Amino acid sequence: MTDLLAEMKRVKTRVDDLILDELLPRSSAIKEVDLLYKMMQDYPKRQAKGMRPFLCVTTCGAAGGTEDDALLTAACIEMFQNWILIHDDIEDGSELRRGEPALHRKYGEALALNAGDALHARTWEAILLNGSRIGLERTFAVMEEFSHMVNETTEGQHMELGWVAEKRWDLNEKDYYEMCTRKTSWYTVASPCRLGAIVAGAGRVTLDQLREFGISLGIAFQIQDDSLNLAGDQKKYGKVKSDDILEGKRTLILLHLLAVASQGERDKVISIMNKQRGAKSAADVSYVVSLIERYDAIGFARKKATELMKEAVSTLNGIEWKGDRDAAEMLTSFARFAVEREW
Amino acid sequence: MTDLLAEMKRVKTRVDDLILDELLPRSSAIKEVDLLYKMMQDYPKRQAKGMRPFLCVTTCGAAGGTEDDALLTAACIEMFQNWILIHDDIEDGSELRRGEPALHRKYGEALALNAGDALHARTWEAILLNGSRIGLERTFAVMEEFSHMVNETTEGQHMELGWVAEKRWDLNEKDYYEMCTRKTSWYTVASPCRLGAIVAGAGRVTLDQLREFGISLGIAFQIQDDSLNLAGDQKKYGKVKSDDILEGKRTLILLHLLAVASQGERDKVISIMNKQRGAKSAADVSYVVSLIERYDAIGFARKKATELMKEAVSTLNGIEWKGDRDAAEMLTSFARFAVEREW
Repeated sequence: MTDLLAEMKRVKTRVDDLILDELLPRSSAIKEVDLLYKMMQDYPKRQAKGMRPFLCVTTCGAAGGTEDDALLTAACIEMFQNWILIHDDIEDGSELRRGEPALHRKYGEALALNAGDALHARTWEAILLNGSRIGLERTFAVMEEFSHMVNETTEGQHMELGWVAEKRWDLNEKDYYEMCTRKTSWYTVASPCRLGAIVAGAGRVTLDQLREFGISLGIAFQIQDDSLNLAGDQKKYGKVKSDDILEGKRTLILLHLLAVASQGERDKVISIMNKQRGAKSAADVSYVVSLIERYDAIGFARKKATELMKEAVSTLNGIEWKGDRDAAEMLTSFARFAVEREW
Repeated sequence: MTDLLAEMKRVKTRVDDLILDELLPRSSAIKEVDLLYKMMQDYPKRQAKGMRPFLCVTTCGAAGGTEDDALLTAACIEMFQNWILIHDDIEDGSELRRGEPALHRKYGEALALNAGDALHARTWEAILLNGSRIGLERTFAVMEEFSHMVNETTEGQHMELGWVAEKRWDLNEKDYYEMCTRKTSWYTVASPCRLGAIVAGAGRVTLDQLREFGISLGIAFQIQDDSLNLAGDQKKYGKVKSDDILEGKRTLILLHLLAVASQGERDKVISIMNKQRGAKSAADVSYVVSLIERYDAIGFARKKATELMKEAVSTLNGIEWKGDRDAAEMLTSFARFAVEREW
């Protein structure tokens, strides 16, 4: 696991240098535009794990490509992650991101929304730079996967927000998996791996296996994220504790609680969850948390996460890698990390 | 002028069919995702002039290309216009768009913001379809221009929002032109024309001339837009009258007023303009409007718009077109329309 963390950090440093030194504009003589550039650099400069760029370059290595060929695409995935987090934080009304105030809390929603768009556009501009390194055809394949990734993510985000907006609670485990596949799995695991494989020139079979691996592991990753939101160390985790309850999120933990709680408890939990963020009292949150503990809903969800991780590893073991064996093994370590991490 | 309007309408219809029938997803079995698709189709289905797709296909024709080759790119420009308007309406707190409630007024800000992102991603996905028709290299050139267009637009949007957020009034005509070039000129005139020319295979000289044409005419277009916001027929124009005053916009009209008004009037106008949207009374708006009338600030701005339009036409006349002469003449008609239109 130490190797994995060191490797993630090494790749993250390379990607950060590329983003901040070459891909993002650094300064403008026009005062307002200069502030926009500063805002675009804000999230990229905050501490983050860098899992997605790691998955991209590591899969590229396992599939027989070079790290240098995958680095730009890995940086673009990280840029994507940053712009979508800016918008996600506005949509969720989040206060903290990576241990600091969310961008819209620092600069207001209008400027932050626009800065997210600016970063989105710069992401596509950066992808185009692939052309001179990996050729036009492969760059096209990268862009197709990339646009698929963004499509899935916005659909998942809509599902989650739509459930809250429409106060929907007639949801089960399958609904949660459908939402998570779109909201999390594609951009967290499936596409980062597939993009690395595409850069390396991998074939259809490998890409299909990586989709399967990514979907299972992405859901497992999200379940662990939901667990940390409730039971994690806020300082390590970098978000407000129990934010998901404040935001009314339909996590597997909460859906399980609703499935096993008594009718009275169920009604009370739903009425609390349906309140607007600002209307939820500390006692409301404590009540929901205490029921989650009483019914061991986190334990239930973590068991599911472990099962999904094992499925993912089994798919991974079926891939016939053409490149670096160590890189392939590192992907297995990552799978375990996704469900065991504390941040 | 009748020919121009008919031609704009004809192109718009073709582009709309392409967007709604082929480029946007139509329906999903998942209820929430289906709502997202409906939201993505909302602005594209509203009535609009279709100036940008018209400029793209017409310039392509003038530069010796075919309409069919330019149509997809024209549709992508229209898709871009739609997603950025969704976000622009949220950023400005606008109520109406094209005569109907803005998207975030219908569905809430979170879902509308996300739908804008979804449409943004679909725009890039659609551009990629050019590959099989105009080849990979030309498609790359289209994407480079497109990303430049989005970069300029977000920078201009940031300048305008930043001025409001920082209560800046130490601005002159040149500042307004700098902002307008970025916010309006690139995506309204320069890039639509240049994209059409790129599809037709035009050279660097023509592209430079189209940039110059587009920047001048784009500013003229924006000045006319600012005038209509204050003095236009709301039913034709489709936005709330005097919205720019409510939003605190630094229009050329307002900057001119501040330059010529007495110190007392100037102070009062600034203190009104600095109020939050909701804090501005009807009397506040009337006061500003009455001063604008007294100093004929709209007349001043329109004169500037006409000068800029004439500069643009003079640049246009210097272009050596390789294609359809009628198309080239249509661009001149459009230049006049941009400053004479009432909607």
